[in-house]
Amino acid sequence: MKLYDYFRSSAAFRVRIALNLKGIVAERSFVHLRNGVQRGAEYLERNPQGLVPALELDDGSVLTQSLAIIEYLDETHPHPPLLPTQPADRARVRAIALAIVSDIHPIANLRVLQYLQKTLGAADAARDAWYAHWNEVGLAALEKQLARDPRTGRFCHGDSPTLADCCVVPQLANARRIALDVAAFPTLLRIESACLSLPAFADAAPARQPDAE
Amino acid sequence: MKLYDYFRSSAAFRVRIALNLKGIVAERSFVHLRNGVQRGAEYLERNPQGLVPALELDDGSVLTQSLAIIEYLDETHPHPPLLPTQPADRARVRAIALAIVSDIHPIANLRVLQYLQKTLGAADAARDAWYAHWNEVGLAALEKQLARDPRTGRFCHGDSPTLADCCVVPQLANARRIALDVAAFPTLLRIESACLSLPAFADAAPARQPDAE
Repeated sequence: MKLYDYFRSSAAFRVRIALNLKGIVAERSFVHLRNGVQRGAEYLERNPQGLVPALELDDGSVLTQSLAIIEYLDETHPHPPLLPTQPADRARVRAIALAIVSDIHPIANLRVLQYLQKTLGAADAARDAWYAHWNEVGLAALEKQLARDPRTGRFCHGDSPTLADCCVVPQLANARRIALDVAAFPTLLRIESACLSLPAFADAAPARQPDAE
Repeated sequence: MKLYDYFRSSAAFRVRIALNLKGIVAERSFVHLRNGVQRGAEYLERNPQGLVPALELDDGSVLTQSLAIIEYLDETHPHPPLLPTQPADRARVRAIALAIVSDIHPIANLRVLQYLQKTLGAADAARDAWYAHWNEVGLAALEKQLARDPRTGRFCHGDSPTLADCCVVPQLANARRIALDVAAFPTLLRIESACLSLPAFADAAPARQPDAE
């Protein structure tokens, strides 16, 4: 399989972590988002949404959307599992992931920031405040949800990494990049630290990718 | 179980469809989003994200995030199934759902529109253009993905409704509400029509809810 990837895409970062946790080595193709390669005809033919990541399977079919890709990897490579076994617990893990994947990341994604500036004429400071705002609101809610729930363990759910952790670590990396004060999120920081002690997470970091700038 | 619901929330609409497809009658509690009830202490205690829907289980625990809730319903009430059986097909259905749930809906959600106006000072016309833009871009990509894939049938995937259809119908309702020209999406319209011929979809529509205004 081949991963269409970009070092700084936090959605691709999620999938890199999942591949590493599963011990899968995928071929890589790098889609330079800052240069707009994702809006070129060749990439749009693969993924009409023009977003990264995408995972091309050996039969040539292409999977899109990071969470759908990770669930696919979990179903086809069940060990180690990235979801717990009980439905209510699985719902909890998916909800933590979706709180990031739906309600933080896309609002502050590159194309949205570009629209804010180019179409609405927002200044750099207003763009940065936008990014910080949605990260802060989303991460604060997640911190509250995780801190009060006894199912939170060394990781987001219990003592082994799940789909949720695959999303938390990249989003905190985004928050740090814009110098958000992450000290307000002690539970998330503790979980991030547990994750980054594992090579599967550390090796997936943007700075360690071949296309890093 | 009790659904925290709001007639006009397209995320809640998704869950209403899934409940209907499964034949589950849930108690309902209506959270008036326009009046800000979702930001009140009582609701935030249930769902710190302050978003609708949430599903309270009989043990008092609360599930959040529409897709996580629908996957829970599908796991606990397997018939009729809302996901196909093969992993690559399941990934396809989830990706269609996520293309809406992550990459259209949250960018044009009420709280984002309010921020655009109150914090960035966007005029009504700029706010409406924003809403239209993200719907148009997202639905056009989805139309392309569905139109070219032989797995698209009477519904998004084959000839019975899935998780994907639970997301397409509410998003098209949003697009219509802002008078977007949906004629550019013939495949989506055909699928919507097939869906709305089923009472499970039609009965979940905003106008048919007890809290509709």
